This record gives sequence, C-alpha cells and structure tokens, in this order.
Amino acid sequence: MSTAELGLPVNVPSTALFTDRYELTMLQAALRSGAAHRRSVFEAFTRRLPEGRRYGVVAGTGRVLDAVENFRFDAPVLDFLRREGVVDEPTLEWLAGYRFSGDIWGYPEGEVYFPGSPVLRVEGSFAEAVLLETVVLSILNHDSAIAAAASRMAVAAGGRPLMEMGARRTHELAAVAASRAAYVGGFRTSSNLAAGFRYGIPTVGTSAHAFTLVHDTERDAFTAQVESLGRGTTLLVDTYDVGEAVRAAVEIAGPELGAVRIDSGDLLLLAHRVRQQLDDLGARDTKIVVTSDLDEYAIASLAAAPVDSYGVGTSLVTGSGQPTCSMVYKLVAREDSAGRLVPVAKKSMGGKTSVGGRKWAARRVDADGVAAAEVIGSGEIPSDLADRQLLVPLARAGSIIGREPLDAARLRHIEARASLPLSATQLSRGEPVLPTELL
Amino acid sequence: MSTAELGLPVNVPSTALFTDRYELTMLQAALRSGAAHRRSVFEAFTRRLPEGRRYGVVAGTGRVLDAVENFRFDAPVLDFLRREGVVDEPTLEWLAGYRFSGDIWGYPEGEVYFPGSPVLRVEGSFAEAVLLETVVLSILNHDSAIAAAASRMAVAAGGRPLMEMGARRTHELAAVAASRAAYVGGFRTSSNLAAGFRYGIPTVGTSAHAFTLVHDTERDAFTAQVESLGRGTTLLVDTYDVGEAVRAAVEIAGPELGAVRIDSGDLLLLAHRVRQQLDDLGARDTKIVVTSDLDEYAIASLAAAPVDSYGVGTSLVTGSGQPTCSMVYKLVAREDSAGRLVPVAKKSMGGKTSVGGRKWAARRVDADGVAAAEVIGSGEIPSDLADRQLLVPLARAGSIIGREPLDAARLRHIEARASLPLSATQLSRGEPVLPTELL
Repeated sequence: MSTAELGLPVNVPSTALFTDRYELTMLQAALRSGAAHRRSVFEAFTRRLPEGRRYGVVAGTGRVLDAVENFRFDAPVLDFLRREGVVDEPTLEWLAGYRFSGDIWGYPEGEVYFPGSPVLRVEGSFAEAVLLETVVLSILNHDSAIAAAASRMAVAAGGRPLMEMGARRTHELAAVAASRAAYVGGFRTSSNLAAGFRYGIPTVGTSAHAFTLVHDTERDAFTAQVESLGRGTTLLVDTYDVGEAVRAAVEIAGPELGAVRIDSGDLLLLAHRVRQQLDDLGARDTKIVVTSDLDEYAIASLAAAPVDSYGVGTSLVTGSGQPTCSMVYKLVAREDSAGRLVPVAKKSMGGKTSVGGRKWAARRVDADGVAAAEVIGSGEIPSDLADRQLLVPLARAGSIIGREPLDAARLRHIEARASLPLSATQLSRGEPVLPTELL
Repeated sequence: MSTAELGLPVNVPSTALFTDRYELTMLQAALRSGAAHRRSVFEAFTRRLPEGRRYGVVAGTGRVLDAVENFRFDAPVLDFLRREGVVDEPTLEWLAGYRFSGDIWGYPEGEVYFPGSPVLRVEGSFAEAVLLETVVLSILNHDSAIAAAASRMAVAAGGRPLMEMGARRTHELAAVAASRAAYVGGFRTSSNLAAGFRYGIPTVGTSAHAFTLVHDTERDAFTAQVESLGRGTTLLVDTYDVGEAVRAAVEIAGPELGAVRIDSGDLLLLAHRVRQQLDDLGARDTKIVVTSDLDEYAIASLAAAPVDSYGVGTSLVTGSGQPTCSMVYKLVAREDSAGRLVPVAKKSMGGKTSVGGRKWAARRVDADGVAAAEVIGSGEIPSDLADRQLLVPLARAGSIIGREPLDAARLRHIEARASLPLSATQLSRGEPVLPTELL
C-alpha cells in the first residue's frame, strides 16, 4: 500500500526538512571523515515513562514508515540548503541521491512499551540513519503520547464508545495524527474530517451552541436539525434550560430521537436528570452523549451515570498532562575501523547515559500468561524468550514491509493491554507495571 | 504576499478538511432553515488564561489568514464527503462554490491578550463563518500557547539568545508552527530546517552525541567537525569527560573555537567550570551554549552563570505545561428575521456562558503610559479609548489585507509586553496582570 493510495489530504512531497539543521552538518563532517559510511544502529527508546504512568503505547509507526519513504531532497529543498549555506556542495550532491536503504525494526504499532524498550531500531550507514532522527522522534513522541492518553480513557470508559473531538485544541495537522493515535488507543470515532479522509477513521458529529443561537428559538433550531438530518440526530440541549430543551427535543423528534448532548454543567447530575426525563417522555432509546473538558478521571467518575458515550477533546490531544514521551534516538552500535559492529554509548557523569549494543526485546510471561517483565539484551537471546520477541521487521534494504491496516494496531493494543497485570489499568499514579530487565 | 510566494515545504492544497464534521451538518440544516444566510458575527476569545499566567500572546494570525484563503472544497474532498454521506447534494453544491467573502478583524499578531479579549472576529453569513471554527481555533490555540511559553522564556533569558530545538518533541508540522510562534514570542533562531524554509527563521545547529560516538575517539570527532565546519563551530563536550573534552576542543580548534555545548549534568556548575577552563586555555571568546530540558525557570536559574545562549526543546513546544489556550469561537451576534443584528449568547446555568454582541477592545493606559486595563464593550466606544483600539482589519470582503512580515509581529510583542505593568514578567504564578473591564 503506497502513501498515494492511502490518500493524503495534505500532500507532503517530502519529509526531508522535518529535520534539525545539525543532522545535515554532522553528515557533512562525517562525509569528510569517512565515518558517514560506517554501518550504524540507532534505537529509539525512552528512559522513563511520563510520571505516574504504568505503561506506554507505541503509536505512529505507520506514519514513520511513510515519512522514511518520503524522505527525499528535491530541487527546492536543495536550493534552500545551498542558499542558506547549510552544507557544502559534496553534501548537497549526496543528499540529492538520498534514499534510505537500510533496515528498520520496531515494536508493532499498538504494542505497549516500558522504560528502555527499543521501540524502533534503524540500521544503515551512519549518514542515512542519523538524518532520520528528528522526524522519527517527532512522530513517535507525539503519537505515542496521544495513544497513551487514549488508552487510559478507553479503560475508564469501559465499553462505552469514545469520540475524539480535539482538533480545535491542537495544531491542525497534529490533530489528524492525534485522531489516528486515539483510534489506535481505543477511541471509536472522530469529529475530524481530515482523519476520516486520510485514515478512514469513522467521523461523527452533533451540533454546536451557535446553531441554536442563529435561530430565533431553540425549537426552530431543533426543528431545522431534525428535518434536515433526521430523527436519529443528536440535539444539543444545554444552550438555555436543559429541562425545557429535552422536552422540546422529544416533542419535535419523537421518541426516535437519536441522542442528546450535554456540554456543560454538572454532568453526573444532569445525566441522571436527563435520563429520567427522557424515560418519562417515552424516549427510552434516546442516548446521552456528554462532552465538556473530559479526561480519564472525569470519564471514570461518570461510570455509574446513565451516559452512553463520551466526547473528548483537549485532554486527549494534549496527552492528558503528558503531551510528549521523551523518546530519544541514540547511536547504540557502529562499525569500527576493522569493520566489526561495536556497542557505543554516552558515558559522561551528568546523566542521560544509555546502554550500548544492538538490542532484542521480549516480554516474559508467568504461568498464567500474564506479562511479568520486559526483557532487553544485546547478546544471545535466552531460548525461552526467543519466540516472545517484540521487534518485528518494518523495512528491509530500504523497502517498507511493515505497513498494516490501522485496525490491526487498534486490536493489537487491546490484546497487549489485556496481557498486562491488572494494576496496569489503574488510573492512579504508580510505577511501570512491568520491570525492565537488562540481560 | 500570497501563500505560494511564501513557499510551502508542505503543499496544503486545501484547509477545508481541518474541520469538525458538525460544522458541515450544521451548515446543511441551516441551509434548509434559511438561517445559513443570516449575517453573523463570531468571536474567538478565552474565558481565562492558563492557570497562573499573567498575560497571553496572540500568535498564528498570519497562519489563520493563509488557512482562510485556502479553505476550498475541491473534487477529492467533495467526493469524500459524498461517499461518507456527511452532507446532502445541495450542501455539497454550496461547498463547491465556497469562498470566504466576509470580514475578519483581530488583535495583531504578537499583541498580548487577557480573559475575554476578542482576539479574532469573523463576520459573514452564518454558513461561511461557522465553517472556519475548527481551523481558526486549531491555529490560535496551538500557536498562542507556544508563543506565551516563548515569551516567558525570553524574559527569563534577559538579552541572551534563545534557540528553538523542540521539533523532535512534537508533531512534525506542529514543530514548524511552533518555531514560528517561538520566533514571535522572542526566540532568535531554530534548529528546524522546515521553519527556515517556510518562514525564513534563521536556522542554527551544533552536534549530537552520535557524531562523537560514530568516530573512534572524541578527538577524531572534533577534528572532523572543525575541519569540515570551521573553527567557528560548536562542539558538544559532554559525551565522555567534560574537562577532557574542553581541553581537546581548544587544542584542536584553537582559541577561535566558536562555542561548546553542554547538554547534561548540573548546568550551573558545569558552566562555571567550563568558562574557567576556556579562559585558562585562552579561549576567552568561545561561547557556552546550554541545552537539556530547559524551561523558563531553569533559564532564570542560570541568569548569573556564564552562559551565552540557551537551546530549548520540550518545554517550549509543549507550551511549558500549557499546550493549549482554551480559545473558543462563539456566535455573538446575528441578523434577526427583521434584518437587524442582535446579540446572542449561551445562557444555561451550567457555565460556559459568554457575553453577546459584536465587541470592540481597547487597552487603557495610566498617566505614565503603562497599561492599566483591557476594556471590552459592544456599544459605543468611549472617546478616550477610540484611538487605543486593539482590533485591526485582517480580511475585507474575503480579501486578505492583514499579512505582514513575521518580524513585525516579533517586534510588536516586545513593545506590547514592555507596556504592561512590571509584574507581567514575574515567572511565578499570579493573576492576569490587567483586569478585563466590560463596558
């Protein structure tokens, strides 16, 4: 499946400029010293989970593969780099021919991760792999943060459907990626039309206060909406008086009214009151949708309320307090002058140290099949873990081989989360639910 | 200046799908009821500043104007809407001819704002103005959040230059907008090449640990970098031992070495130690750049340290704890059946109420020229405020008239912040530094 076939609402001719300037100047210096051609292994991982979180969720892998495929330096880009004096002519020539020709392995999208998990591994020459750092991290850090928040909200919602409606609270294209990540994390629908267009995520919607206000009366607005969109529509009932609105809604649409939405006030109290009123009016099948600055805690607090679905905006697209995941992309091994691959790692005292070596990762399970540890090593993998490896091939010799439908990632996440110890789904702050063991 | 002339690294053929589905279904129902054609006034504003913040910073206005100009429903978009059954044929026909034909007023970019400030006002038919809600809010909420964080960091840094380097911590295109907003808020440079390409922001860069690690020794790496990039380059000195690295750096590059970067450890201590060492080695003009999870507080804590510039990533692009601004886009006035413009507002008890009416805004100053109050009203403007109005015309009859160079917004912000009471630049949490007065 090519990017073109997927259909981009925003045509991204190249991802090559989503790059920090130093990647290119390092390339120039490494071309000069010859180190550019050393076979190298970079790994993306996080040293810790966001504070209090019990697991991370890998998201954005599919977008990373698109970005790698589209990482090309075309004429306008090269002209810009030349004009700005970013790099010299030999480097520009090298960039003009850039195509990633290495291998990529990674945790499949939707999988959970823990501190130290090698979520993505990029292998190739130093030159071709170092250039991908910025865009790989942009995507993984953003998308995984959103998916982690979505997963917590999905747990809090139990089986009730969640609608993503945060486009207005984040950058317009981050919003599209956020819809996608939320879907991976367990959301069912999105208000974002670009997310429907680009990723096939089911889009839904209700109505805004402006629609009620532009009509002379709330009844006029409800009548217009029902006449145009049918009785199955969702009417917004909190512009003036909720009780009067619900009465008018059922009078106009009949008991076939699809749903009412409550977007302000004490949602717990209002949900009970509106449910009672709807039932009294005979609209027993009319659903109640609540929105209004929900996060996983507010959703959980409505578990016993007669709510049928939740719409979540701000706290979802901002990662519920953790808008990024601190993933880093580090050189862990490279060829030495004798052509052998040797582990490397930053060693200074000040922190930010990491573990060198090209790593495997596996999840150890206990006798009941419940995950017990995230095991990571760079030597031989113990035989009992060999069939529990987490890294899968995503690109081989530059060809993308890891694309999959988004629903596969969504299902994988449900399974991965279900395999964790029960405490994984506690919303309270805690330690990562699995220890990371380094072999 | 057209969008095309500005040069987009990412070609956005249309912004029309950066839209919540309900905008289109409301349009359909309003076309049916006739309310779609009522002259309407929408305003974007925020009910409160993020907790503890003393002022907001308007950013993204220029991007909003680009988005409005590119808000077109082309054939692939219309086909998608038809296939998904989002709206009916008469609505699709109406969308096919969509061109915003109304007026836009707003606070100029870089200006400060306060709770209730009508940061943007969109006037046109209900139909044409309601459709812009999502994309207008996406841009203003994201960009203003970043600019507000940038402004606080610029205050903390005093006159020392700030480099934006957060691309890897946020969505790849949000990163480009973040660079732009950071520049408006007071940053001087960016590591982000796309921000240089798209907005002409000066790009800079140093070097990463991977560059040192890919070479056999740190000395090899420094030699390669200096030979390729010149003595004015910035060497990263914390891969192994900082003291040894600084000694090697000056030995290799000589006292003309441009700068050294410290990216981990106790920055205060290291900055003093490295400065002393550089001076002892005769490299008195070699600058010290610090990075490593800086925010405005960490920057302020280094005010007395011998630091020459700061690189800021994560906390900048995530708005330093406040990644969005809660701006809303509300219908505040619309034509009634007699053709008169009447104020409207949500009235329910539960909160989220707002003030109806098409508003002016002005900043009252005291005898010393210091800002004293944000004054907002919907009636006649008092004569003493008439020449202190904040809203400027941005689009007239659908034509964009408010474009300006980014440096104009950057300078405006410096002036606007300087006109606020001194307490505006305290980093500690507090109330908005100006009261909002409703007339």
